[in-house]
This record gives sequence, structure tokens and C-alpha cells, in this order.
Amino acid sequence: MRQRLNFWVIGGDPRQMTLARSLAEDGHTVHTYALDRGGEPSLAADGLAGAAVADCVVLPLPAADGENLNAPLSSLRLPLAQVLDTLRPGQLLCAGMADARLVQAAEARGLTLRDYFAREELAVANAVPTSEGAIQIAMEELPITLHGSKALVVGYGRLGHVLARQLRGLGAAVSVAARNYTDLAWAQVWSYGVERSDQLSGWLCGYDLVINTVPAPVLGRAELADLKPGCLVIDLASKPGGVDFTAAAELGVKVIWALSLPGKTAPVTAGLAIKNTIYNILTELGV
Amino acid sequence: MRQRLNFWVIGGDPRQMTLARSLAEDGHTVHTYALDRGGEPSLAADGLAGAAVADCVVLPLPAADGENLNAPLSSLRLPLAQVLDTLRPGQLLCAGMADARLVQAAEARGLTLRDYFAREELAVANAVPTSEGAIQIAMEELPITLHGSKALVVGYGRLGHVLARQLRGLGAAVSVAARNYTDLAWAQVWSYGVERSDQLSGWLCGYDLVINTVPAPVLGRAELADLKPGCLVIDLASKPGGVDFTAAAELGVKVIWALSLPGKTAPVTAGLAIKNTIYNILTELGV
Amino acid sequence: MRQRLNFWVIGGDPRQMTLARSLAEDGHTVHTYALDRGGEPSLAADGLAGAAVADCVVLPLPAADGENLNAPLSSLRLPLAQVLDTLRPGQLLCAGMADARLVQAAEARGLTLRDYFAREELAVANAVPTSEGAIQIAMEELPITLHGSKALVVGYGRLGHVLARQLRGLGAAVSVAARNYTDLAWAQVWSYGVERSDQLSGWLCGYDLVINTVPAPVLGRAELADLKPGCLVIDLASKPGGVDFTAAAELGVKVIWALSLPGKTAPVTAGLAIKNTIYNILTELGV
Amino acid sequence: MRQRLNFWVIGGDPRQMTLARSLAEDGHTVHTYALDRGGEPSLAADGLAGAAVADCVVLPLPAADGENLNAPLSSLRLPLAQVLDTLRPGQLLCAGMADARLVQAAEARGLTLRDYFAREELAVANAVPTSEGAIQIAMEELPITLHGSKALVVGYGRLGHVLARQLRGLGAAVSVAARNYTDLAWAQVWSYGVERSDQLSGWLCGYDLVINTVPAPVLGRAELADLKPGCLVIDLASKPGGVDFTAAAELGVKVIWALSLPGKTAPVTAGLAIKNTIYNILTELGV
Repeated sequence: MRQRLNFWVIGGDPRQMTLARSLAEDGHTVHTYALDRGGEPSLAADGLAGAAVADCVVLPLPAADGENLNAPLSSLRLPLAQVLDTLRPGQLLCAGMADARLVQAAEARGLTLRDYFAREELAVANAVPTSEGAIQIAMEELPITLHGSKALVVGYGRLGHVLARQLRGLGAAVSVAARNYTDLAWAQVWSYGVERSDQLSGWLCGYDLVINTVPAPVLGRAELADLKPGCLVIDLASKPGGVDFTAAAELGVKVIWALSLPGKTAPVTAGLAIKNTIYNILTELGV
Repeated sequence: MRQRLNFWVIGGDPRQMTLARSLAEDGHTVHTYALDRGGEPSLAADGLAGAAVADCVVLPLPAADGENLNAPLSSLRLPLAQVLDTLRPGQLLCAGMADARLVQAAEARGLTLRDYFAREELAVANAVPTSEGAIQIAMEELPITLHGSKALVVGYGRLGHVLARQLRGLGAAVSVAARNYTDLAWAQVWSYGVERSDQLSGWLCGYDLVINTVPAPVLGRAELADLKPGCLVIDLASKPGGVDFTAAAELGVKVIWALSLPGKTAPVTAGLAIKNTIYNILTELGV
Repeated sequence: MRQRLNFWVIGGDPRQMTLARSLAEDGHTVHTYALDRGGEPSLAADGLAGAAVADCVVLPLPAADGENLNAPLSSLRLPLAQVLDTLRPGQLLCAGMADARLVQAAEARGLTLRDYFAREELAVANAVPTSEGAIQIAMEELPITLHGSKALVVGYGRLGHVLARQLRGLGAAVSVAARNYTDLAWAQVWSYGVERSDQLSGWLCGYDLVINTVPAPVLGRAELADLKPGCLVIDLASKPGGVDFTAAAELGVKVIWALSLPGKTAPVTAGLAIKNTIYNILTELGV
Repeated sequence: MRQRLNFWVIGGDPRQMTLARSLAEDGHTVHTYALDRGGEPSLAADGLAGAAVADCVVLPLPAADGENLNAPLSSLRLPLAQVLDTLRPGQLLCAGMADARLVQAAEARGLTLRDYFAREELAVANAVPTSEGAIQIAMEELPITLHGSKALVVGYGRLGHVLARQLRGLGAAVSVAARNYTDLAWAQVWSYGVERSDQLSGWLCGYDLVINTVPAPVLGRAELADLKPGCLVIDLASKPGGVDFTAAAELGVKVIWALSLPGKTAPVTAGLAIKNTIYNILTELGV
């Protein structure tokens, strides 16, 4: 990757502010647009004309808000198509959660589109602020310390691994619920208690905290009824979530459904993770 | 310690509520008084008369609010002297932070007074909710994750040990500032970075988070000026604290002075720790 | 899986002794054969005739020693074909490292062959005794404690993860060398130092211990020349290993090539891991 | 402490070799004597005459072997008195385990004697190689991995803390046996299982490994009879040890009594710890 590149960061939230600032600190030329309410002066300005010479144009995460650019820190309402029209064929466009419309629009204009949110290293890095955001919620809600509490992490993918470790790092007694033999073997290697995520009912009454990471209905009425009074449930699974919210309400189980934590609880960390991922993309492309 | 004792829990906050409930769950007879706004029915009621036959009378932490019993969950204003007058000579009275007046009053009435807050095992146990409360504050205030952050713990006593471990458990890069050779040796044994707490100035610019546990002026103007922009300072030291708050305000350093965290952030955990300490007292006395 | 099954454990080393004993402790009927020098009385005996009614026949790891059964604890030399001839079509045969000849022989006789060594959960479980065996070697060889040492783990697969964690658990400063972005992201999530395994030369001089897990030539002459005097190299990669042994000898670098550690250093743990894997196989087959 | 001092290192084992070498690497002038079989050329030589101008004379650990200097790496037999006679009044003499005779002899000659082995920071630092040496023994002796094993650490002083942490760092399930409430509170803070060291009998049958650090008879016949077959006992307590060795032999319990581990298993680490302690002594004396 070349050491002095020309970046345009267009639209986005505090993560893109961090991204732009950090790119500049690394010695690159950085222009921002539609980030004007970001709490500090735009690093560049005056229209999108200059974007046509950028080595890399960065769109936010998600890139689009309907037909418009996702630009919560700007008063501008920019159709995404209009942004793309300012670019030249062959330019590199990095976007987060690029939807079908954006893919098509980029292709039609001959742009090289890369979705940084689709890359595994970003998913790995984002597991950290997601986990820490969930822990913050648990600390705020529970009248006990996480230290000494009994916590269950449902699902043992990327996020489950980070959550289990951070919870134990605080001194919680952690169990992991998983389905396949390999995940269960890993849970034993890392010395966690083990539950079967397809046989949770009847095994839940000891926990003070249950955090779900599985985007499937794993905590239904039977499982929720099994929880002890005061047990907190945090659902980190994307829509439709993994908890039967209706049953929870009826049973008086407190459930907090927490989505998109990285951008909310640690925007600087999340922005730097996007930067690293874009650097990897550039390195792979030989830019 | 006998398995069925008669306890009176008089005054206090949610910690005493937990204490009373947990004593009852352990099979003891428990009466509460002046805890009537505790969010649940008093376990016993109707005047203090019965307290004269208690095996152990528990006063809150701190026991006194001026001349009165510390009873924030009650509409009663009870002079502490009046409470003591209901007791018999020889009875065991456990109180937290017993001041000179209470010591004298107990002695005058021939009561056996024990200050549970003065016991080291409670101080050890309380280090956990204090540490976790500080971590919660840091998570709420910082735009970065504690994971990957650089954190300095000033002072390496009980609280410093717990803080350093929990911060690292979350993935922070932790340094410890201490003065004497033994503490410095322990910091190395536990693989922390090491600073000299009497030579902090000039060594602080790398930290994202500084947590002070030393009740002495360790973070003065020179040290605060050395911090990088955005560094958060949390002061856990009891009055007068360890930070020059005037200088911090002038320098634009954000300082949060957080006192009495156990009762605030984890009253149930804190209440159970008091119970364990009282059990130890009873065991030692052969009750 | 049924709770009372009939197992035949035929041939093998102390791992199979453990397996047989533990199966019996779990309530199953267990017969062993060709394990007679195992240091304790065979749990069953007198020819292989009874094996034809076994619910599960277990062969060792590896199953074969040339054309014969691998049976280092027996004076018998049993052709593997002869063992299989005693079984009935449809019987379940669990073997470790089943080679082409065994696969063919089992198929010709209509046996249901499962290679337990090919299963990922066993590979995960075996990473633990391999890692611990390597740590034991390092402790024996080095005049320094692992605590406080600088250790590099080359390769960040299953074994690399366990090694890095155990080394840090002892207090070593651990770095991980990996190639792909996902592995590097994980190394950062777990707070290890990071090296690029394809660019090691020039970055090795600080390490006291280098443990290779990659079965490819990663530590060649240039890399070995970069090590500091006294640095210990442990190669855990299967043949042909990852170290240029000739160059190491010429450069005076001490290299220990340690293979098959689980069976050597922790045969009981390794035998129990085989048992668990066989249980999983039986459960999947609905036996 | 001044940056260029004149050291004489007289007598000793590989720890003193390391000490001498490391002092020289730090830029000091170093002379050794009676270390001639240390495997490398003495850094200095030819009689003790020059020692009279040393800023610091270092004797080994222990300093004396009867009336002579403890000098296992030398063919010389030097009466300690003769060594001291070469020194001038007021010179600083650092020795390990200085016995009454040495104290008296130093006083008689007006020497400033400091016993580095009596300092707490060295005791803290030495807990690490002792713990690691014990872990190495356990790895060598047990047919199971420490990971997943059940280990009991008897005594929760300096060594107990380090042992418990390193064992858990490898993945063992660790319990701590202690007596006083403060130690028990710490064991709970660090999430260890807890036993009462004065009530061990009847609570020992679950352990695979018991490591004693208490120099008092804690593992008598009743306790040893309670261990499960194959349980390994390691006694790290100095004489007379904490185990009833006769009973152990009769009961067939394997006990390994391991003393002076730092010098044996990690002489380089142990030597560097002595150096740091001597530096602290020099700093305190304003040398």
C-alpha cells in the first residue's frame, strides 16, 4: 500500500469522523463531505468535484439510507446516485453493507466496489466493542457485580468467544451454549461451563445473566420461564432477534435488545477498525 | 456459629435489605426496622422492643447520620441513642464505620460493638464492586473500548490489584504506579507495566485512562498537564482525593470523582459481603 | 446414545488403556485385546471371537503398523486383516488415522468405518496436551522462567491458539505470527504481539522461545540466523517440519522437534479425548 | 544509584554467573572470583586483592558453606573469614542468607552487611521460578494435562498466589486452602475454589494435584489417606516440610519434596532477581 494516498470520506457518523482523522494522522490526504456536524471542522470541503481523483472513496456503514447517502451528521440529503456520478470508472469505492442497489449502481458506473463490512477481519474486530457494549449494559442493569455472577453466552461464534472471555476476565463464572461438537470442544478447551443451545430449557435457572448471540429463536417461552427472578437477558442477535419478546414481557423477564453497539459505545474503536480493513483492501489491490 | 440466630437489621440502604433477605434465606430469624421504603415488606415490624433478645443487632454503613440512625429508606428519624437504649448489656452490635460517639455510647451501655467495615476481609471484598463501578464509568465515558486501551492504575493496594486485573481481563494494556519495592515486584510478577507513583510527571502521555486509588495528592498540575487530550481520570480516593481538581478544570482534563461505589453500583453484592463479614465476627465470638 | 453398549478395544498404547477403563467406568461392557502389557489385567480376554457382537470396535491411533495392528503393549503380531475378518458386516469400527488399506479392507467387509482422528473436535482437544507438552519441554530446556520470557508462536490455527494462551497464562509475553488478515485480527483481539509469518526475518532477535506449528518451511537459514543466542526453537509441525534443521545445526541453534506429544505426555487426557469423540460418533449414528 | 560501579562477585552458582554477566552488560565494572568452573571465562581474576576498592561485594546464596564460602563452581576452598579480611571497613557487602557467624564477622570488620535474601521483593520475585519449577515437576509426573485437572494449593502466601495463578493460566481448576478470613476473601476475589487449611481431611478426594506451601504439618496421615489414587503431592515447604512422609510412603501416595527450585530450574531468572534486589539496596543507601 502506498504511504500517501488521496481519500474521500463521504457521509457517515462518528466512526467516519475517526476514520478521516486517523487517515490524516497516518499522512494521507483526506477530504470529507457530508460530515459537517461532526463536531469539528471538515478536513476538506466545497462540493464533491475533487472526489474524482481520489485513490479511495469511503462510504459509511451502512452506506445508504434508502435512496440517499447515510449522513446523519449532515444537513445535506444526497441521493447516493448523485455521489456516484461524481466518480470516474475504475475508482475504488469502499462501502459498508452495500445493498443490491449500490452494487448495481457501482457496476453500472464501472466503479470497483468493496464492502468492508463483509470482510471477516472487521467482523472479528467488531466483536470487541459489541461485547464491551453488552457488558456495560449488564453493569448498568444488574444490582450485582459481574464478578462472581453466573453468566451464560448463547452461541459460540466470533462474538461468543469475545464475550465469554471478557466476562471471565471480570471474574464471572461463564458457561457457553453451543450446538456442534467443535464449538463444544473449544468451550472445554477454554474451561467454560457447557450447555447445549438446543436443550436450554431446564438448565437456565442458575444464571444471573444470559446473553444471546444467535440470530434464531433460541430463548422461547419455555426457556424464559426457566430463568430465575432478576435474571437479565441481553439479545445481541440482529433482527428478528433470538428472544420471544412477547413471552418475556408476559413473564416479567427483563430483556434488552441491543443492536449496532460498536458505533454507539465505542465509535473511535469502531472507526479505527474500519480503517484497518480498508488498508487491507488497498494492500490486496496493490494500490 | 449457630445455625439459627435472631438478627435485627436496623436502618440502612439496599445493602441492608439484601443482608436481611439473605440472612432469612440462610434460615435465621430476621427482623428489620427503619427499612420500610426498601421496596418490599419489612420482614418484621412494630417497634424496636424485640431487639433486646437479638443475638446480633446490625446497624448500617455508615451507622450514623449525625446524631441519628442512617436510615435513608425510612421516614423515621431515630436518634441512635434511642436505638441503643432498647438493647441489653452484653448484646452484640455490628455497625459499619462506627464513630467515636457510637463507640462511647455502646460502651456506656455495656454492648459488644464490632465495626464490620474495619475488617480487612470486607475491604478486600469491597474492592470488587468498587473496581467494577469504576470500569462501568470508564465504559460510559470513553469513546474507545477498554480493550486495547492503555490504562494506568495509581496505587497498588487492595483496590489497585483488583482494578488492574479486571482491566486486563477486558483486554486493556495495564500499568501500575507504585512506590515501594515490594509493590513494584508484584506488579512485575503479574506482568503489568510499571510506573513510579512519585515520578509520574513525564510518563503519562500514553494513557487513555488513569484511575487513582491513593488518598494523597498524586495527580497535581504537572501530572495532569502531561495527559493526552481525551484521557479520562477517575479518582477513587476518599476525601480529599488524589487529584488537583482546580488544575484539572483549568486544563480541561475530565475527572470523575467516584466515592462509595459498592453501595451504588452493586448493592446486592455489597450486602452479601457484609453478611459474610458478620458471620466471621459471630464465628470468632463463638456465638 | 444408549447407556450400555458393548465395546471391544483392540490394540493400542496407554491411551487405549485409559479409553477401555473409562468406558467401563461409564457402565459399558468392555473387552480389550492386544493390550496385555498395559500394566494391568485386561478387562476381557481369550481371542477375538466375541468381537463380532460388539456395538463398537475401537482400533488404535494410528490403527495400523504396516500390515499389522498397532499394538505396542502386546507381544501379539496381528495382521489387521485378521482382526477385521472376525467382524460382521454392518458393525461399527472406529479407528485413528485409517489409511487407504484399512478403508478398503473395511469397505470390502461391509464394515462402517469412522476415523476418530479425522474429526475436528478431537483435533481441538488434542491441541491441549500438545501445547502442554511443548511447554514442559521449554521449561526443561530453558534457564529462564517462561514467566517474563518473550515467546513467539508461529502459526495461529488450533494449536497456536492454545499455545499462545497457555504461555501467557504462565506470564510470558507472547507474540503470534500469522499470514491472513482474519488470524491477525484475532491475534489483536486476544492482545498478542503480532508478526507476519511470511516476513519473520529481521523480527526474531527479541525472542527467548520460538514454537512453530506450521507444516511448511517457515524457519529457514535467514530466520534462524536472526535468533538471539540461547533462543530455544521447538518444532511441533508434522513431517517434514517447519525448520531447516541443517542450518540450525550449523548456526548452533537448539531445535527440538517434538511429535505426537498427546500420547507421550498426557496419555490419560488423550485417551479420554478419544472416548468423547467416539461418543459423538455413536450419537450421530443413533447407536 | 550511580551508573558505573565496581562490583566483586565472589563464589556462588549459576545465579551469580548471571548476576556478574548482567551487571557487566549494564555498564558496571565486574570482577568475579571463585566462579571459575562457571562454564565461561571469569570476567576478572587473580586474587581478591582488588576487592578492597569495590563499591559492592556480592556473596552467594547461601553465603556460607559451613566456615567456607559457598563456591560450588570453584575448586577453591575459601574460609569466609579470609574473604572478609580482604575488605576495608565501611565497604558494602551483599550476601544471601547471612547466618549469625557472617553477621558477626562483618560487624567485627566494620563492613556494611545487607542480606538480599531477607528482602521481600526478592521473596516475591522468587515465587515465580519456584511456582514454575513445581509446575514442571507436575507436568513430568502426571499422565494428565494440568489443563482440566483439579489442583489444590495449600497456603495462600506469596508462593500460593503465584502458583494458583499459573496453574489456572494453564487451564487447571484451582482451589486454595487458607486459614484466615483475609486470605479466604482474596481467594474468592480471584475466583478460586476455597478450602480451610485446618479442615482438609474429608475434602481432598477430588484433587489430581496437591501442592503444599505451608511449613507446618498440614498433610498428615488422615489427609493423605483422603487423596484419590494417583493424586500427586508436591511439597514446597522448607524443612521439616508440611507432609508426613512416613505415612505417605505407607499409603502409597507419591510425594515430591522440592526445595530451592529457583536456582535449579531457572538460574538466569533467579540471578537477575538478585541483581534487581542489590540495585534496590544500593539506591536506598544512596551509593
